[in-house]
Amino acid sequence: MGQALITDFYELAMAGIYLRRGMTGTATFSLYVRELPPNRGFVVAAGLEDCLDYLERFRFVPEDLAWLSAHGFTPDVVEAMAGIRFTGEVHAVPEGRIVLAGEPVLEVTAPLPEAQLVESFLLNRITVHTVLATKAARCRLAAGEIDLIDFSLRRTHGTDAGLAVARDSAIAGFSGTSNVEAARVLGLRAAGTMAHSFIQSFPSEADAFRAFVSGMPGPYTFLVDTYDTVTGVRVAAEVIHELGLEEGIAVRIDSGDLASLATAARDVLDGAGLPHVRIFVSGGLDEYGLEDLRKAGAPVDAAGVGTKVGVSADAPYLDTVYKLVQLGSEPIAKLSEGKESLPGPKQVWRREGAADLLARREEPGPSGAEPLLQAVLRDGRRTAPPTSIVAARARLAADLAWIPMEARRIRQPHAPAALVSDELQALGRRTVASARARANGDSR
Amino acid sequence: MGQALITDFYELAMAGIYLRRGMTGTATFSLYVRELPPNRGFVVAAGLEDCLDYLERFRFVPEDLAWLSAHGFTPDVVEAMAGIRFTGEVHAVPEGRIVLAGEPVLEVTAPLPEAQLVESFLLNRITVHTVLATKAARCRLAAGEIDLIDFSLRRTHGTDAGLAVARDSAIAGFSGTSNVEAARVLGLRAAGTMAHSFIQSFPSEADAFRAFVSGMPGPYTFLVDTYDTVTGVRVAAEVIHELGLEEGIAVRIDSGDLASLATAARDVLDGAGLPHVRIFVSGGLDEYGLEDLRKAGAPVDAAGVGTKVGVSADAPYLDTVYKLVQLGSEPIAKLSEGKESLPGPKQVWRREGAADLLARREEPGPSGAEPLLQAVLRDGRRTAPPTSIVAARARLAADLAWIPMEARRIRQPHAPAALVSDELQALGRRTVASARARANGDSR
Repeated sequence: MGQALITDFYELAMAGIYLRRGMTGTATFSLYVRELPPNRGFVVAAGLEDCLDYLERFRFVPEDLAWLSAHGFTPDVVEAMAGIRFTGEVHAVPEGRIVLAGEPVLEVTAPLPEAQLVESFLLNRITVHTVLATKAARCRLAAGEIDLIDFSLRRTHGTDAGLAVARDSAIAGFSGTSNVEAARVLGLRAAGTMAHSFIQSFPSEADAFRAFVSGMPGPYTFLVDTYDTVTGVRVAAEVIHELGLEEGIAVRIDSGDLASLATAARDVLDGAGLPHVRIFVSGGLDEYGLEDLRKAGAPVDAAGVGTKVGVSADAPYLDTVYKLVQLGSEPIAKLSEGKESLPGPKQVWRREGAADLLARREEPGPSGAEPLLQAVLRDGRRTAPPTSIVAARARLAADLAWIPMEARRIRQPHAPAALVSDELQALGRRTVASARARANGDSR
Repeated sequence: MGQALITDFYELAMAGIYLRRGMTGTATFSLYVRELPPNRGFVVAAGLEDCLDYLERFRFVPEDLAWLSAHGFTPDVVEAMAGIRFTGEVHAVPEGRIVLAGEPVLEVTAPLPEAQLVESFLLNRITVHTVLATKAARCRLAAGEIDLIDFSLRRTHGTDAGLAVARDSAIAGFSGTSNVEAARVLGLRAAGTMAHSFIQSFPSEADAFRAFVSGMPGPYTFLVDTYDTVTGVRVAAEVIHELGLEEGIAVRIDSGDLASLATAARDVLDGAGLPHVRIFVSGGLDEYGLEDLRKAGAPVDAAGVGTKVGVSADAPYLDTVYKLVQLGSEPIAKLSEGKESLPGPKQVWRREGAADLLARREEPGPSGAEPLLQAVLRDGRRTAPPTSIVAARARLAADLAWIPMEARRIRQPHAPAALVSDELQALGRRTVASARARANGDSR
C-alpha cells in the first residue's frame, strides 16, 4: 500500500498543474512552528525519521494512479505522477534538539511538484511527534529524579499515535512504556502493573497479589487502591514479607490525593521494615501534577503518565507551517495578514550562553556557534543511517542544559526568541517590497 | 502483522495468570465515559466498527508469541495464548448515537482472559472516534446551513487519526475531506482548493487562477488572501468573467478577520455581477469560530475546519473507562475514591421528551422507550454487516432532535444526566456493601 495519497487533495491538484506546465524548477519549502503555545517555553524537534522513511519510499502505486484517473487527472498528469520519486534534499534539525518559534525544523529543496506533494505528510509527522516529545520533555523536567513510564495507549488519538508517544517519551527520558507493540518495535522496556479488575477477580487483595507473583516474573508492583489505599498497602506489606520478595517491589496508588496517600504508604512500608519498597503513582498526571508532587515532597519513586501526556492535553497542536521560501533563484515571502514569513533557505546557529541566530543558509555563522540544520537527505536518499532514540535523548539532554531556566519553567514559561541576522533581515525587506509590487501589479 | 500486542503490558500479564489458573469464567466489562468535559453537553458514540473488526480478527501471531516467550511468559501460557480467539459477545450503542456520562458505549461479555486482553485497543478506538465525532458534531451544530470540509490531516495525531477525523466528521454531516486516502478508503468526497505557494509560483494571482482552471476540472475555489484579500477577490472576479466560469465557483479567505473580509468579498462579487460565486473561509476555525461567524451574519457559504477539530483542541480526550461489572454471576463494583462504579451489565432506555434511564440489562424498559445497546457481536462474530457512515449520520441527526437545547449549546452547554433505575440502584447498594465487607476482611 502506497502512502502518496495520504495527502490533501490540493497537493495533487497543484502538483498536477505544475507537471503539465513543466514547472519543475527547484523550490525550497521551510517547515517551522510559527508561534509557540502560551504554555511552552521550547519545543523538541521529533518526527524526522518518519519523514525520511516516507521520502525515500515516495511513489504512486497503481491503485493511487487509478484513483487519480477517476478523479479528474488527465492521462498526461497521471503518467507523470507514475514516474515521480522524491529526488530532492532535506536539511533538518536532528531529533531531540530544542527548537524555537520561527526556526526551521526541516527544509525541503526539490523540483516544485515533489516538494509540494509531500507537504501534508511532513507536516503531520513533524507536528505530532514534536507536540508529544515536547510534552514528555516537560514531564521529565517537572518530575525531578523519579522514573516515568508511558501509560497513554488507551487514550492516544489512534494506535500510531500510541507508538509515537512511546518513542517521543523515550527521547524525553522516560524509562519504559506500557505499550507492548511500541516496546517491541522500538526496543523499549515494556512495563506494567495490574488493573483493579485483576484485584476484583480474586477473593481478596492478598490472593490477587499472591497470584500475580506466582504467575509472572518480577519486578512486581502491587495496585493498592482498589478498596482502601492504606489498607491495601498493609496487605501488600504482608504479602511481601510472606513471600520474601526483595528486589524491584513497589506499590501503586492510582486514585485519591496522591501526595498524601504516598506519604501514608511510605509510613506503612517503613513501619513494616520495607524501606526498599518503592511507591508508584498514576492517575491524571502530567507535568503540572508531577511538579506539584515534587514540590510537596511526596515520597514518590516512579509515576505512570497517561492521557494528558498522550494527547498533550494543554497544547495538542502546534502552529506548524510549510512555507515556500525560494523558487529557482528567487526568494519568496508571504504577505497574508498576521502570517508574514522570512524568505530563503535558512540556518540556525546555536552557541552556549547566547540567543539562537536565524540566518540565511549560505551566510557564515558566528564564531563558536553550531549549525542546527544538517543535510540529512540528498538525491532522495538519507545521508546517514536513522538516528537512534538514545542519540536523540542525548541531544535533548544537552540542549536542556543550554536553554534558559525561564524556558524550562513548567508554569508560565518564557520562550526565548531567535535573533535574525542582518543579511536575512535585509533579504526579507527586499523580498516583501517586491512581493508588494507584484500584488499591486495584480490590482491594476 | 497481528494486533494483539497493541495493548498494555498488564493486560498480557493478567490474562496469562488467568489462563494458568483456569480463571476463564465469563466476565462483563462496561466501557463508558465517566464524566463529560466541561464544554461538552453530549458525546457521539463512534469507533465501534474498528473494535468489531479487531475482535473478529483477534489472535496472537507467531511473532507475538515469540515476544511473549522472550519476556517472562511461561510455555503453558504462551501455548494458551496461541489458541485464543475472541469468542464472546458485545452489546454496543450504534455509531452516531448520542451518549451521556455513565451510559455504556459498549459492553464485552467473554471468558475473563479474552475480555481483559482487548481492553486497551477498545478504549483507544472508542475514545479517539468519540472525541472526534463529538467535536465535529458541535461544529456542524454551530455552523448553521453552510458546508463544512475536513481540512485537518496536517495536524492530526498521526495519519490514522487523520482517517478517523475524516470518517467521524462525515458522520457529523461534513460534506467532504481534503484527505485523499480517507476519501478513497471511506468513499467520501475529496475536496480542496490551492495553497498560497501555488499563487506565489506564478507571476500574478490572475495567472495562478487561470493555470488552475486550465489544469483541473472544477469546482474551482480561488485562494484570494496571498497578497491583499479584497484585491484578490477583484482579481478572481475578473478571471471568472474572462473564462466564463459559472458553476461551483468560490473564493477562499484563509487569514485576517474572516467575517469582515467575507462581507467585503461578498460586496465585490455582487458588484461584479457574481452573486452565485460562493465564499469559503478557513483558518483556525472550530465550533466557537463558526458560531461567531454565524452570529455575525457573515456571508459565508462554506468553511474548511482543520487543526482544532482534528485534535479536538478544547477537549482532546474523554474520561473513558473499561470496568469489570460482573464475574460469573457476581455483580462487581469499584470503590476507589472518586471512581465508584455501578455493577452488572446494563441497558440504556431512551424516549422522546424524557431523560435516559440507565438500567440493568435484564430489566424491562419503560413503555415507549428504545434500548440504545444492541447485541452487535455473538460468539465472536458480527451479528450484522458493518454500519455505514450514512446510517450513522442519520442516527446522529435523529438524536440531535432528541437532546435538550441546552446540551446542544456551543458555549457553556449543560449535559443531561441519565436517571438510574430502582433495580440498578438497589443492586449497586448491595454490591458496594459486599465489596466493603470483602475489603474489611482483607484488613484483618
